Amino acid sequence: MTTQGPSGGNNLDPWYDHYADRTAGLSASEVRALFAVASRPEVVSLAGGMPFVSALPPDLVSGALERVLRDHGAEALQYGSGQGTTALREQILEVMALEGIRASIDDVVVTTGSQQGLDLVSKLFINPGDVILAESPSYVGAMGVFRSYQAETVHVGTDGDGLIPDALRESIMQQRAAGKTIKFLYLIPNFHNPAGVTLTWQRRLEILEIARSNNILVLEDNPYGLLYFDAPPPHAMRSVETDGVIYLGTFSKTFAPGLRVGWVVAPHAIREKLILANESAVLSPSAFTQYTISEYFAHADWQAQIDTFRGLYRERKEALTSSLAEYLPELSWTDPTGGFYVWLTLPSHLDSKSMLPRAVKELVAYTPGTAFFANGDGRHNIRLSFCYPTPDAIRLGVRRLTKVINGELDLLDTFAGTGQLDDVTLNYRVSSPPPNID
Amino acid sequence: MTTQGPSGGNNLDPWYDHYADRTAGLSASEVRALFAVASRPEVVSLAGGMPFVSALPPDLVSGALERVLRDHGAEALQYGSGQGTTALREQILEVMALEGIRASIDDVVVTTGSQQGLDLVSKLFINPGDVILAESPSYVGAMGVFRSYQAETVHVGTDGDGLIPDALRESIMQQRAAGKTIKFLYLIPNFHNPAGVTLTWQRRLEILEIARSNNILVLEDNPYGLLYFDAPPPHAMRSVETDGVIYLGTFSKTFAPGLRVGWVVAPHAIREKLILANESAVLSPSAFTQYTISEYFAHADWQAQIDTFRGLYRERKEALTSSLAEYLPELSWTDPTGGFYVWLTLPSHLDSKSMLPRAVKELVAYTPGTAFFANGDGRHNIRLSFCYPTPDAIRLGVRRLTKVINGELDLLDTFAGTGQLDDVTLNYRVSSPPPNID
Repeated sequence: MTTQGPSGGNNLDPWYDHYADRTAGLSASEVRALFAVASRPEVVSLAGGMPFVSALPPDLVSGALERVLRDHGAEALQYGSGQGTTALREQILEVMALEGIRASIDDVVVTTGSQQGLDLVSKLFINPGDVILAESPSYVGAMGVFRSYQAETVHVGTDGDGLIPDALRESIMQQRAAGKTIKFLYLIPNFHNPAGVTLTWQRRLEILEIARSNNILVLEDNPYGLLYFDAPPPHAMRSVETDGVIYLGTFSKTFAPGLRVGWVVAPHAIREKLILANESAVLSPSAFTQYTISEYFAHADWQAQIDTFRGLYRERKEALTSSLAEYLPELSWTDPTGGFYVWLTLPSHLDSKSMLPRAVKELVAYTPGTAFFANGDGRHNIRLSFCYPTPDAIRLGVRRLTKVINGELDLLDTFAGTGQLDDVTLNYRVSSPPPNID
Repeated sequence: MTTQGPSGGNNLDPWYDHYADRTAGLSASEVRALFAVASRPEVVSLAGGMPFVSALPPDLVSGALERVLRDHGAEALQYGSGQGTTALREQILEVMALEGIRASIDDVVVTTGSQQGLDLVSKLFINPGDVILAESPSYVGAMGVFRSYQAETVHVGTDGDGLIPDALRESIMQQRAAGKTIKFLYLIPNFHNPAGVTLTWQRRLEILEIARSNNILVLEDNPYGLLYFDAPPPHAMRSVETDGVIYLGTFSKTFAPGLRVGWVVAPHAIREKLILANESAVLSPSAFTQYTISEYFAHADWQAQIDTFRGLYRERKEALTSSLAEYLPELSWTDPTGGFYVWLTLPSHLDSKSMLPRAVKELVAYTPGTAFFANGDGRHNIRLSFCYPTPDAIRLGVRRLTKVINGELDLLDTFAGTGQLDDVTLNYRVSSPPPNID
């Protein structure tokens, strides 16, 4: 066995020179070790995106499980179809109808969470060197998948109304002028992760038209659409365009992520390939978890339960933004109308990643903005998740975060005028900064 | 949108020219449509590899589920670790100890069935054009994964004692002389799928030595090892070699496939990358199904349950081979000492794939041997699965199969001498053919 790779790399790994080229794109998050610390109970974590599953009534779940074993035991414990069960795909149509989507059960492919939908679509479409267009910022988990298939994520300008159509036109032109192949446009139109913004209806239509006229597929990722606070967001992009949109849905936020059940809706030919890719990846999605969700959706008042989640997350969002307004009024943040996330902009001379260890020491955790950019941007941004901690914990977390930020600023004030920070503009006390988040 | 691909291909798919190069390797099984017919209840299916999950006592499963919800509800419904739960990884060590494997819980990565283990390992290692060495025949699902990452499966000679070491040496030499990169050797040492043979202990050691001296990783796939009929098979290859073996295990055959829980044991550096690849693919394996299996293994007498499975499958294997001996004594087949499969060799002028529609018409289904070869071989072979049908159904299935085979032979006899079949040698009545299965 060799003990050294071809580029003199890792001599602790005897298989170093055996990996595929794509494996170079797999890297652990730089903040992974910190998050292990941040999972201690005394830390208020505003970092993760865990839904508050304790709000699910246990009786509804145990009732569903009893019926699965009683009525469908043999099928639920067995291998199933690579496309998913018929019953669940019918229920998925009901769920999607709430967002204006009309489809047939044949159009739906059940996956092991919508993350696996991202993986399968990427595997089907991405050649090394391809470009994926995405919002600025974009979901860290999606960009990781794209990178794992050796694609480059190119961010497109985004503001408080979501992706900017003119920026998209320009980006397509630039990438094509540079000889790049754009494989798809990846979007989270509702309550964006991490930006907390929602794409307007007018922009949805305009972006679909741009995609159509440029022959670019749209990958619409919609985990949060039903978790609006007051009014529903605009209908899904898939509701007006069937041939050019691949749609990703999930039960992780309306039921529970521990079951790992999501789905993809795709145009006919793509969907046939998705089923084959799904079979290649896992043979079939878990029949057991599919039957469990089916029984829950068939017997529980699932829409009332989603209302419960909505009320709960709205209260937590209010706790977060009102605390920010109270303690950090000089800063700017997005004010989402649903979902899990607020995107906070720090003074431009603070670095959210280098500040994180101090935050964890003060028993509060967040995700640095750099996680959501493929290009190193985001150093002055923070994603704050309000989905999991209680409102009181959120307020405590913001107070702790304020202490950390003020501590950083004091430190900078101390060094100001010493010549060490001459390149830093201390202009963070400007109030009402623009809501632009890119 | 284009309506035609660059090679004038599929004008029904507007995205035809958008797919990745690897997607060309995804193809539906040629016998898929037939198997849909074969799943009708009146058909005796000797085709699938479904374990007989009805032998699991429902009380043991429902008890496990009750404890999951009562004691671990919040964790089981939530996102989990990309490596799997600590409790389940500890139990996996207990299971593997039965086959001589000593490992640490850090070495184990839980996957969505062992099929996903195959997918993740392939994603980490395979560049387009790489070669994977495999038994002759080999598992259809593994070869599909290798192909989906654009590897070429090269079969290595195999006989009644498993892979032949000298054939492996020669194959390595040939591939390297041809400038090919061999990424790993894929093996199912116990109760092979589809061949039904078991690799001897002496050969395991010899093959490990060949792999070591040629710097080739071994991918040891062991779904059936605990399902021996009388005596256990030799210890796992991983029991003697830790740095050069990636081991795949599963709960699909000792518990139930509907939960989709398998695992990979890999050397340190590879395992770290596997966790990242797992997170990229599905974020985390289902916590719910992991807790369910953990509770079952913690409270049920799982070894007694495996004994039950063993007795059941032994009885079914006996039904199959005794029926073959009674009705088709001229043919040859492997006589497995465990697992799910018998590999039947037809007279060389019969074609198992073209015969399948007639078999389904006679209400018996099997898998043609061609499914288990990457090179078109296997036309005279059939995989017969004895895991799912009852002994009576198996005997009925063999009687129906006999009618089909005799019908084919009569047809050939009718045409013999007419000049239409001059190239066919009707020598199938030779008794006691050699047990060679390649």
